[in-house]
Amino acid sequence: MAILIRGGTVVNADRAFRADVLCDGDKVVAVGPALAAPAGAEIIDAGGQYVMPGGIDPHTHMNLPFMGTVTQDDFFTGTAAGLSGGNTTIIDFVIPNPQQPLLEAYHQWRGWAEKAAGDYSFHVAITWWSDKVHEEMGTLVRNHGVNSFKHFMAYKNAIMADDETLVKSFRRALELGAIPTVHAENGELVYQLQQDLLRQGISGPRAHPLSRPPAVEAEAANRAIAIANVLNTPLYIVHVSCKESLDAITRARAAGQRVYGEALAGHLIVDDSVYDHPDFDFAAGHVMSPPFRSREHQKALWQGLQGGNLHTTATDHCTFCAEQKAAGRNDFTKIPNGCGGVEDRMAVIWDEGVNSGKLTPSEFVRVTSANAAQIFNIYPRKGLIAAGSDADIVVWDPEGSRTISAKTQFAKGGFNVFEGRTVKGIPSTTVAAGKVVFHRGELRAVEGAGRHIDRPAFAPVTAR
Amino acid sequence: MAILIRGGTVVNADRAFRADVLCDGDKVVAVGPALAAPAGAEIIDAGGQYVMPGGIDPHTHMNLPFMGTVTQDDFFTGTAAGLSGGNTTIIDFVIPNPQQPLLEAYHQWRGWAEKAAGDYSFHVAITWWSDKVHEEMGTLVRNHGVNSFKHFMAYKNAIMADDETLVKSFRRALELGAIPTVHAENGELVYQLQQDLLRQGISGPRAHPLSRPPAVEAEAANRAIAIANVLNTPLYIVHVSCKESLDAITRARAAGQRVYGEALAGHLIVDDSVYDHPDFDFAAGHVMSPPFRSREHQKALWQGLQGGNLHTTATDHCTFCAEQKAAGRNDFTKIPNGCGGVEDRMAVIWDEGVNSGKLTPSEFVRVTSANAAQIFNIYPRKGLIAAGSDADIVVWDPEGSRTISAKTQFAKGGFNVFEGRTVKGIPSTTVAAGKVVFHRGELRAVEGAGRHIDRPAFAPVTAR
Amino acid sequence: MAILIRGGTVVNADRAFRADVLCDGDKVVAVGPALAAPAGAEIIDAGGQYVMPGGIDPHTHMNLPFMGTVTQDDFFTGTAAGLSGGNTTIIDFVIPNPQQPLLEAYHQWRGWAEKAAGDYSFHVAITWWSDKVHEEMGTLVRNHGVNSFKHFMAYKNAIMADDETLVKSFRRALELGAIPTVHAENGELVYQLQQDLLRQGISGPRAHPLSRPPAVEAEAANRAIAIANVLNTPLYIVHVSCKESLDAITRARAAGQRVYGEALAGHLIVDDSVYDHPDFDFAAGHVMSPPFRSREHQKALWQGLQGGNLHTTATDHCTFCAEQKAAGRNDFTKIPNGCGGVEDRMAVIWDEGVNSGKLTPSEFVRVTSANAAQIFNIYPRKGLIAAGSDADIVVWDPEGSRTISAKTQFAKGGFNVFEGRTVKGIPSTTVAAGKVVFHRGELRAVEGAGRHIDRPAFAPVTAR
Amino acid sequence: MAILIRGGTVVNADRAFRADVLCDGDKVVAVGPALAAPAGAEIIDAGGQYVMPGGIDPHTHMNLPFMGTVTQDDFFTGTAAGLSGGNTTIIDFVIPNPQQPLLEAYHQWRGWAEKAAGDYSFHVAITWWSDKVHEEMGTLVRNHGVNSFKHFMAYKNAIMADDETLVKSFRRALELGAIPTVHAENGELVYQLQQDLLRQGISGPRAHPLSRPPAVEAEAANRAIAIANVLNTPLYIVHVSCKESLDAITRARAAGQRVYGEALAGHLIVDDSVYDHPDFDFAAGHVMSPPFRSREHQKALWQGLQGGNLHTTATDHCTFCAEQKAAGRNDFTKIPNGCGGVEDRMAVIWDEGVNSGKLTPSEFVRVTSANAAQIFNIYPRKGLIAAGSDADIVVWDPEGSRTISAKTQFAKGGFNVFEGRTVKGIPSTTVAAGKVVFHRGELRAVEGAGRHIDRPAFAPVTAR
Repeated sequence: MAILIRGGTVVNADRAFRADVLCDGDKVVAVGPALAAPAGAEIIDAGGQYVMPGGIDPHTHMNLPFMGTVTQDDFFTGTAAGLSGGNTTIIDFVIPNPQQPLLEAYHQWRGWAEKAAGDYSFHVAITWWSDKVHEEMGTLVRNHGVNSFKHFMAYKNAIMADDETLVKSFRRALELGAIPTVHAENGELVYQLQQDLLRQGISGPRAHPLSRPPAVEAEAANRAIAIANVLNTPLYIVHVSCKESLDAITRARAAGQRVYGEALAGHLIVDDSVYDHPDFDFAAGHVMSPPFRSREHQKALWQGLQGGNLHTTATDHCTFCAEQKAAGRNDFTKIPNGCGGVEDRMAVIWDEGVNSGKLTPSEFVRVTSANAAQIFNIYPRKGLIAAGSDADIVVWDPEGSRTISAKTQFAKGGFNVFEGRTVKGIPSTTVAAGKVVFHRGELRAVEGAGRHIDRPAFAPVTAR
Repeated sequence: MAILIRGGTVVNADRAFRADVLCDGDKVVAVGPALAAPAGAEIIDAGGQYVMPGGIDPHTHMNLPFMGTVTQDDFFTGTAAGLSGGNTTIIDFVIPNPQQPLLEAYHQWRGWAEKAAGDYSFHVAITWWSDKVHEEMGTLVRNHGVNSFKHFMAYKNAIMADDETLVKSFRRALELGAIPTVHAENGELVYQLQQDLLRQGISGPRAHPLSRPPAVEAEAANRAIAIANVLNTPLYIVHVSCKESLDAITRARAAGQRVYGEALAGHLIVDDSVYDHPDFDFAAGHVMSPPFRSREHQKALWQGLQGGNLHTTATDHCTFCAEQKAAGRNDFTKIPNGCGGVEDRMAVIWDEGVNSGKLTPSEFVRVTSANAAQIFNIYPRKGLIAAGSDADIVVWDPEGSRTISAKTQFAKGGFNVFEGRTVKGIPSTTVAAGKVVFHRGELRAVEGAGRHIDRPAFAPVTAR
Repeated sequence: MAILIRGGTVVNADRAFRADVLCDGDKVVAVGPALAAPAGAEIIDAGGQYVMPGGIDPHTHMNLPFMGTVTQDDFFTGTAAGLSGGNTTIIDFVIPNPQQPLLEAYHQWRGWAEKAAGDYSFHVAITWWSDKVHEEMGTLVRNHGVNSFKHFMAYKNAIMADDETLVKSFRRALELGAIPTVHAENGELVYQLQQDLLRQGISGPRAHPLSRPPAVEAEAANRAIAIANVLNTPLYIVHVSCKESLDAITRARAAGQRVYGEALAGHLIVDDSVYDHPDFDFAAGHVMSPPFRSREHQKALWQGLQGGNLHTTATDHCTFCAEQKAAGRNDFTKIPNGCGGVEDRMAVIWDEGVNSGKLTPSEFVRVTSANAAQIFNIYPRKGLIAAGSDADIVVWDPEGSRTISAKTQFAKGGFNVFEGRTVKGIPSTTVAAGKVVFHRGELRAVEGAGRHIDRPAFAPVTAR
Repeated sequence: MAILIRGGTVVNADRAFRADVLCDGDKVVAVGPALAAPAGAEIIDAGGQYVMPGGIDPHTHMNLPFMGTVTQDDFFTGTAAGLSGGNTTIIDFVIPNPQQPLLEAYHQWRGWAEKAAGDYSFHVAITWWSDKVHEEMGTLVRNHGVNSFKHFMAYKNAIMADDETLVKSFRRALELGAIPTVHAENGELVYQLQQDLLRQGISGPRAHPLSRPPAVEAEAANRAIAIANVLNTPLYIVHVSCKESLDAITRARAAGQRVYGEALAGHLIVDDSVYDHPDFDFAAGHVMSPPFRSREHQKALWQGLQGGNLHTTATDHCTFCAEQKAAGRNDFTKIPNGCGGVEDRMAVIWDEGVNSGKLTPSEFVRVTSANAAQIFNIYPRKGLIAAGSDADIVVWDPEGSRTISAKTQFAKGGFNVFEGRTVKGIPSTTVAAGKVVFHRGELRAVEGAGRHIDRPAFAPVTAR
């Protein structure tokens, strides 16, 4: 059934303009003034509203086995929560155990994802190195729609990639037309600081940020950038949380290097005072890595988005419930790392970014969908409203408002780092793959409706 | 008559894709695969070529009265030369004498421009201050399609704007929805250094760059940025020529300030060794302000374009012949400042930028048209190939080549700063306002065919 | 009478070591272990204490006629208060009115200073320009012991120096072997912001910092640095109060430029929350320019001192009483600008800098005396404890403590920006010109005992 | 026998002044005007000359077993060559093989050093980690006069320290009052680039700098700085060769971190065009790590010295003859890394630094001796001319000149990277430990006259 979104202001990354949008099947088929509604079309009144590409969250962990447990949100509940917030695509992570074949892990995750309600794609983590890893990277790119590989520079004695692995994997990615990404924290320093803190008897959640100061993150960001520079690969740095990491990116970009940075909605909004909270559940609920930072870092991250040194916003959606978090009650290093957000990202960024004048609506589209689509090579299928693009659309009501709470959220886990925040600017309707999946508070997510989105390898554009 | 450009790769700022482009009247009417040719349509074969938005040179001086003489290129020869190089729009400058009413000057320039072969628009310079200037700025914005005002921080005892004028004019521009631009050089220091050099008997062209070192430019850039920061206005800095100026922009942008920078094709390609040439005509032919710089500055400017800290490329096209330049034979301060380039900008930037891998074709479009169109608010009419946009198109042959020379150029003045350079990548066809105006070396420019392009004031985009 | 300071740890800029110090007449005559006391020598027990060069405050305004009134502290009370705090030398400012001959003003100030209890010297401000100013600068350097000239870049319509004056005066200073100094704030922007705030009805002390944001200061600092760079002069920037100004200095120094920066004790310790105080007298008592800044700037200033990008600490001691401050009760621009501090500088910097581990004792000596002595060319007479140096010494008790209060201070004005702060580390004895002038809380200052310290022009050091 | 150095200008780090210098035994006993010569004293006429602390070269490798061979200069010839150039102290390196006990290596080196003609001391390298290493670090500091430990971040599969070793050793050093130092190059990247180049058949000396680009060095410098920052240790970075490394230091220092940088005389003077030389012996003679860099890096290093972001100058003196270098004729990775310079450092730095006005004579003393003495805690015994200091003095003739050549040098190896350079400003006399060891071209070095200089651990200076 066709859908006609009528009377709104279409916002793309390059401009905003009055136009109607007609969807048919899973595609946008027309964008223009005063479009006629085909017979039987569903009409959505977007008067006084913005019509924007559905959000892409390039960093989620649904159904993640981590630290001996599994996240609360699976691919259905997680993507459904996203749809309610205007997010129509996620890029999740396949994380092989060291020694595990990449393809085996990849198929595991593909299996878990079949129940997704929204579109999804996968970064694959390189957690170890061998000739087989080298070979399977090729298979993933050529045959499985993977064009990005993730490297954890933290988590010593687990999935940490050392310099040798980074060098070999970055180089292999280049050869394949894939982009390397990194979680930038120096795992050796984190480990040392954790041991020191525990030795000193500092074992509560407050120790978590102390074990991961900004210098630890900036070191790793700088190192990954240097490796990419020397090997001439592009680089994408996930969850940049502090000024010092951002500075490393800014310097590299000013020197012409193709480095991209991602900011999490949480890091943009929440500060590290949460770790001082006397309630363990509250403080532990905020334990993620990198941790929340002081306010000056948030100011810097916004400046990074404004100045074009940060490109995407994500959530690292990774939900654990209070019982799971309690595993670290006596030892902060055992608190499962992760927070949610896929449902709230678009709204909190609009509220804090657009309402304050930091970002224009077009810039909002850049950092919530278009840039991610371009960097991960699914543009203009995603991240644009134009004839031929996927019919993934959020109709955004700038006057609507909502108070965020774990009590009313669709996501699982029973916790929300934005708890109690009232945002102005919310989705009134979400269209995904040409279907209305959310409308005025009502979620119509369908298990299994989501599709795996193949992301092709990068190839030079030529006129021939 | 309709024109169908067939078989090429359309390049816009956001992506490149195979498509035909159909123009009718002065507009693009369709972009898509395998478009049918309307009856009587002129077919242009773009096979193996790129189809890009016509260039916008946001900084030219046609028919300029300056230092007691008038430039060689008038609006016809200058815009025609531009068309031959794939440039379909210029933004020139109205420069009132101090005490001259802005509107009087504006109408003078509009009169001179009537003969233009290509589209044009005007920045208006604020060279003095009074209540009348304040008022006429409003008239220009509201009634005359002007949305940018230029300020010369150099040229003491002539058109230099002091801090008081800068502050008042920036603030007025903000109120009107116009963007202030600056020529950033500290006029007081230039004047002092000029006097010193002359006193020391250093009077030849070599003295020109000595009187305008990078620190002189960087100071002014930094000052204009600070004023814009304090008054909360956007800012556009013309002809950024050195690393130190660029650094000031980069710092401001990293802090989230909306500052834009322009690089000249000449500054990107030519270095300051030209001033050491023993032939006065050669050396003087390169006298412009800011002067050409050493190679490290060129490297920095390219990095600025790559990293997004510089946004546009221009030429400051301002042609004087050898006889005019000779006025400064015994005193470099009397050499008319200016060089050409409107005809060559696109080709030299393609050759040095795209062929070397520094820029992708989409990035080339950004810095040759799309960014200028967005910054000066004529996007998507200009700077984009899409249905509804002006039919200003260059078909770009990446395999074609040409050796640049004053002997074979269309522009006047008998001099070319790129003399002898062979470029690979040239326009095969230029379409302007829906007409083929250049085709395989043949220029079909028509005097008076160019139109004044009104540029509306900036207004916040809202959904209502 | 000789004085033997026995048993202490002598701290110079380059090292700290156990030694006795023998003074005779107004000089140190011996520094070494276990010195014998001459007959009749006064013995000072420095056991467990540091023996350091007396402080040099390179920025004070005693007896200053300013904004229609005169500061509370004259040269006697001001220098006496300094002695009580371990400060044995001040460098004050001669500030000619525009059009006033420099020498006339100089002699005025010399007359006022005759009653000083401690040594003093003068910077001379260049507040206007003429051939006579040019000539008198020479006379001051050659005949009157002046080797530094001050330029106010703020205070439009009063003593502000425009770029032409800066350029001419810096150049003249270079020729004379004198160092230019600047008060760095863009007077044009301050003026504009002041008018705007008043127009908006924001007229209380809180408006003061709003009219002088960091960007206003940083602009001027950067401009002065650029002028010095182009003219190849050294430069000293007084009262650097914000990160952005410091960054300008840091960049210049990293490029090898000889730029020096001064931090005020107040800016290092007090933050801008004082302007939010509901009591006008309290808020107005803190009105000085540049204003107090937010905490991140204080952190930056300390880093500047630690990293060697800031060199001296001063006070800008300039005391007005509540009645004087009340002149601006209805218009913040009429509040006389100025705060005290000469009595407390050493103690608050020790307490915050050395006790916290930010500075070593030797670094403390650098930033409280040695660097100022070197920059203003009175080293090793001042700023060093060595045979031959002036017997200006503070014996510092690191265990002593004191709570600062206007009620107990020696300085006039009835106000103290450090009110209520308890410092650990205080002078137990001050020796000035070979006399004990302060001992265990008792001030023995003698009116007229201070001497004018001639500061010779800089000359290249050569072996011939 | 006493020595009286008469009529010169004494230059210390803080000032230059006319004075005679009297030495007796191995100490300076008096510094002052018109000193009387004791009976039998040797009189050295320093009229028209500078009298400066003897140089300290904090980075030499005498008698080094490296890459299967041993350097040409042993401790006698190397220190003797140093004396001829005004260098009276070296700090060399004990480099244990992985698994070798530190003390065993230490005693090996001490044995080799017994024949030294000038004073020497040792940094000890941490090339592996174990509890025994941890323990022996303590023994070295407490009992053997070692207060600095070196870490090679390059030389994979040999002596490279990984992050775990760096973290543990830095932390141990802090506990002991010792300072960690690093050779900053990312060994993993170097290894990868070497293999790539060899695979591509690029095997000559030109490949050497290609395998060690600036980004490789900057990465490691930044990493070491981050580790020091997190662990709160000071840090000394040896042979900073490029702008990017220096920038990392400059940033850290601007943030108040205690990081020190060393520049090599070679890196300051010689550029990377040497590797393009067709003669293998010439090109290979310049192979050292980090390699020589392009001119912009040299400019940056000088700015680092001027601005106080680099502190010491050294040579990395490590001489191999042509036969030894020939081991890498077919594989650049087998060319023994190293160049000489201990004999020429002072002269080339004076010539390029002081004669050009970049450095004052006092600043020359800082970067050739005083700073090294302070950083490595042998000040004021070394690095100062004052009563009580070691009688290590160079009398410097600013008018003398010399053309540097391997043919006339005292050092072994038959090669000199400064070959053919004529310097103005040379030592006329060197006094070491109170003996004239070099006088007007005649070297009087005595085998075994050098002494091991114990360097005590750092301890906080307190008044008690």
